[in-house]
Amino acid sequence: MAASVQLDEPARTPRVEEEEEASDDEEEHEEWRELYGSQLQLEVEPPLHDARDEGTADAWTERNPSLIRLTGKHPFNCEPPLARLMHHGFITPAPLHYVRNHGPVPRADWSSWTVEVSGLVSRPVRLTMDELVRDFPAAELPVTLVCAGNRRKEQNMVRQTAGFNWGAAGVSTSVWRGARLRDVLRRCGIMGLRKGRGALHVCFVGAEDLPGGGGGGGAKYGTSVTREWALDPSRDIMLAYAQNGEPLLPDHGFPVRVIIPGCIGGRMVKWLTRIVVTAAESDNYYHFKDNRVLPSHVDAELADAQAWWYKPEYIINELNTNSVITTPGHDEILPINAFTTQRAYTMKGYAYAGGGKKIIRVEVTLDGGETWMLCTLDIPEKPNKYGRYWCWCFWSVDVEVLDLLGAKEVAVRAWDQAQNTQPEKLIWNLMVCTLHCWFKVKVNVCRPHKREIGLVFEHPTQPANQTGGWMARQKHMETAAPGLKRSTSTPFIHTTDDKQFTMSEVRKHGSKDSAWIVVHGHVYDCTAFLKDHPGGADSILINA
Amino acid sequence: MAASVQLDEPARTPRVEEEEEASDDEEEHEEWRELYGSQLQLEVEPPLHDARDEGTADAWTERNPSLIRLTGKHPFNCEPPLARLMHHGFITPAPLHYVRNHGPVPRADWSSWTVEVSGLVSRPVRLTMDELVRDFPAAELPVTLVCAGNRRKEQNMVRQTAGFNWGAAGVSTSVWRGARLRDVLRRCGIMGLRKGRGALHVCFVGAEDLPGGGGGGGAKYGTSVTREWALDPSRDIMLAYAQNGEPLLPDHGFPVRVIIPGCIGGRMVKWLTRIVVTAAESDNYYHFKDNRVLPSHVDAELADAQAWWYKPEYIINELNTNSVITTPGHDEILPINAFTTQRAYTMKGYAYAGGGKKIIRVEVTLDGGETWMLCTLDIPEKPNKYGRYWCWCFWSVDVEVLDLLGAKEVAVRAWDQAQNTQPEKLIWNLMVCTLHCWFKVKVNVCRPHKREIGLVFEHPTQPANQTGGWMARQKHMETAAPGLKRSTSTPFIHTTDDKQFTMSEVRKHGSKDSAWIVVHGHVYDCTAFLKDHPGGADSILINA
Repeated sequence: MAASVQLDEPARTPRVEEEEEASDDEEEHEEWRELYGSQLQLEVEPPLHDARDEGTADAWTERNPSLIRLTGKHPFNCEPPLARLMHHGFITPAPLHYVRNHGPVPRADWSSWTVEVSGLVSRPVRLTMDELVRDFPAAELPVTLVCAGNRRKEQNMVRQTAGFNWGAAGVSTSVWRGARLRDVLRRCGIMGLRKGRGALHVCFVGAEDLPGGGGGGGAKYGTSVTREWALDPSRDIMLAYAQNGEPLLPDHGFPVRVIIPGCIGGRMVKWLTRIVVTAAESDNYYHFKDNRVLPSHVDAELADAQAWWYKPEYIINELNTNSVITTPGHDEILPINAFTTQRAYTMKGYAYAGGGKKIIRVEVTLDGGETWMLCTLDIPEKPNKYGRYWCWCFWSVDVEVLDLLGAKEVAVRAWDQAQNTQPEKLIWNLMVCTLHCWFKVKVNVCRPHKREIGLVFEHPTQPANQTGGWMARQKHMETAAPGLKRSTSTPFIHTTDDKQFTMSEVRKHGSKDSAWIVVHGHVYDCTAFLKDHPGGADSILINA
Repeated sequence: MAASVQLDEPARTPRVEEEEEASDDEEEHEEWRELYGSQLQLEVEPPLHDARDEGTADAWTERNPSLIRLTGKHPFNCEPPLARLMHHGFITPAPLHYVRNHGPVPRADWSSWTVEVSGLVSRPVRLTMDELVRDFPAAELPVTLVCAGNRRKEQNMVRQTAGFNWGAAGVSTSVWRGARLRDVLRRCGIMGLRKGRGALHVCFVGAEDLPGGGGGGGAKYGTSVTREWALDPSRDIMLAYAQNGEPLLPDHGFPVRVIIPGCIGGRMVKWLTRIVVTAAESDNYYHFKDNRVLPSHVDAELADAQAWWYKPEYIINELNTNSVITTPGHDEILPINAFTTQRAYTMKGYAYAGGGKKIIRVEVTLDGGETWMLCTLDIPEKPNKYGRYWCWCFWSVDVEVLDLLGAKEVAVRAWDQAQNTQPEKLIWNLMVCTLHCWFKVKVNVCRPHKREIGLVFEHPTQPANQTGGWMARQKHMETAAPGLKRSTSTPFIHTTDDKQFTMSEVRKHGSKDSAWIVVHGHVYDCTAFLKDHPGGADSILINA
């Protein structure tokens, strides 16, 4: 059905009411293909009916087969493989964009869809899609969307949270086109602030049938933003009907969704059906029970018992400043030899900030934060006319291979233009939103081939229930030997090619001089840890 | 001369051009005495001619005698005693407000003073003070000003920076009244963004004669903000001519200064004479050579050699999220006895954020960050109609005295509504602006009287060149015993009443069982450190 929709070029109709300086402004609307075209690699393999969707309400959908599913079969929540995401650069192909669905995907029809605007407005209206496209000037700009749970698996490794296992690819960038929410609200005559009838919040409601809300199904996803945000021209909030120049994909809210740049994805309601202007914030179940950052001492039980969900100060809206190492990738091997040690290795990754702030600095440390190397920044985006930045940027830095050989861990941190940077350590919270501590990659010595050594890089986690990652390994180690002190600084020397070992070979390493153990099918050399174990070396040796 | 000025009640003249919803808005201008009156304790001792100002260009001024001078005699830079600042609560009396002067205070006359508005405006103008008061609607609101160097002495203790020694009282709050910059710029017809003549920056120039800029004196203090900031109604930028209902004091910019809420003090030009709209940011010496946060590896030499001052990304504007413990105060003693141990001790302090963000959480830790107690917040301010907060707030938390007895250190961190919090550790930078790591107070056991024990609290530093503070003490210890490993977790047990010890008493503590040393007139018990000294216990014992 999406294929039957013809989107005109962005409308050039007269604008509703302009800012006072608008007549003097440059035409904001630029051809994004011209601006970002040199970096576009949007071609991907065709979507498929996935066997995992059979028997679910989403059986009619087609999806990119490479997406990593985070919550089993249904609902559909996924991220692309991190290397794949990076390969495409600044603009993510829509079929690879991460997805966060709370329930089944609505089967929508462009021609019959409407968005109702009601509540504290003097001229309520029900807009068709054609009206939305035709009657409002189109805004079109690239926006990075980030799930508030991006990187959450790192926190789940330390202590399970109420959220599922996002890796570091819960982030994607598209060029979104739509009508400005501000224009729509002014057209409908949003009421003022005067006492008693203060139009203070703008609520969004989606179309899907959801289990939440304590009822017997039929609840809708909904949330709200403040009036100030909704009307702020600098925030570029829009009702988007095109992604990268095409109609939205079903998973991304076809035919229309909210886009709120600089904000967590959870406020950007998909399959938008209603906009309601109200005096109070949204009373939707998902508005209160998701996307909150509660203090560390609040667990699920306490959150319910003491009504922490309803304390307004713990809502999250703007994204945190964050950065991730994408090169080296997980399990990437760098051979150490006469050739490689004379060259620099280029580390790379992404960074983003919230609220329109620019990333002004990214730094990498090889020594646990004692010293930092300044990275080169690649910021493809042009800021909006209010100076706001809505997209991720990329960083790179050349590191001497010999310095990597001497490092146990590499870590990255970003700074935004308000001088916010990332904390060193993870701060646990129940929902684990906005995880943004330093992204740390372990550097382990390995033996890629006989008579050759190399470095193998290990990310903190792998998404979903995939094994792998130093945090997962440490967690396994804790499970296998519960008394073992956690160490984040001493890497295990583990092989990258498990199949080289038969169990009889492993059995040879059962002494204090060389203690190997097998955990979840991986072989670990624990020799260096024998002295650290509070229960004594024997606690490991009985496993070896 | 200030006394001769009669400020009318805020003007109620028709506004220049209103926001589209303004007709519907509440009257913003409220009587601040009504709003904040219950907390006002603005009475202070009369100002004096200070002997330290004799022979300087400021000899004509009168100042509050309790202010702590940070840069010797001249220019005048000061902060109030921290306890004094806290005593006055939400609104700081103007005579106690911190002062950052770069040179002599201009002797200004209300009736002849003018502010010239020029550059990329279609109607340049030279405004008298009476015109500024009469011809523009007055805005009046409380704003917390913070010197970007607030708490800088903590960083100077670790490694000397290019800045002088601010304690934790480089912060004050006043009710400021003035004309909105936005109104003035629109009245003057600020030009647009179109190519070639883009009016992108608004520069401010002060009146004082300064040594900076490489010339032979006569330079003026100046800086700039972007057009977006200058015109943004939500930012409340004003040309202020009244502080707490009175004309400005000479030290605070009489007769008119810039106020930019949520921004570092360094952009708020005092004794304002010129506003120039330009295509490029200010070329003023002080705009580039101050208020920058450079990466840690950049020292003074490198900054000059590689022109780090001129890289636009390192400018600072918005304040960082910050919090400070003010109760217990430095050297405060809490006796430990049957009475006190059955009661809670109430810790208190202040917190602020930048850019209009609300402080949503303050937490205190007694165990180095393992667990955190949630504090009660007192936020006296009403946000502006855009939801922005411009003022500090206060926090308090009840702590069991027995828990304090078991703690070595208490620390505080705040969170703002964008989920930014403070880093644990200090991150060195050349200017040391925006220091905002956890504020840590050491808890030392002491003997306030014979046969009584107590806890004595020790702040990290004391302002200016005052001795005192655990960071200063550790620095002295390093100087006295250069090889000694720094410890921030193990407090020295030091007496609070040095006069109890004669040198002959100290000499008795020269063994491994009890090693006292004398550094800068203070007696320190180093027994616990003997085993830590990398040069061996003897390195300390030769001093003991």
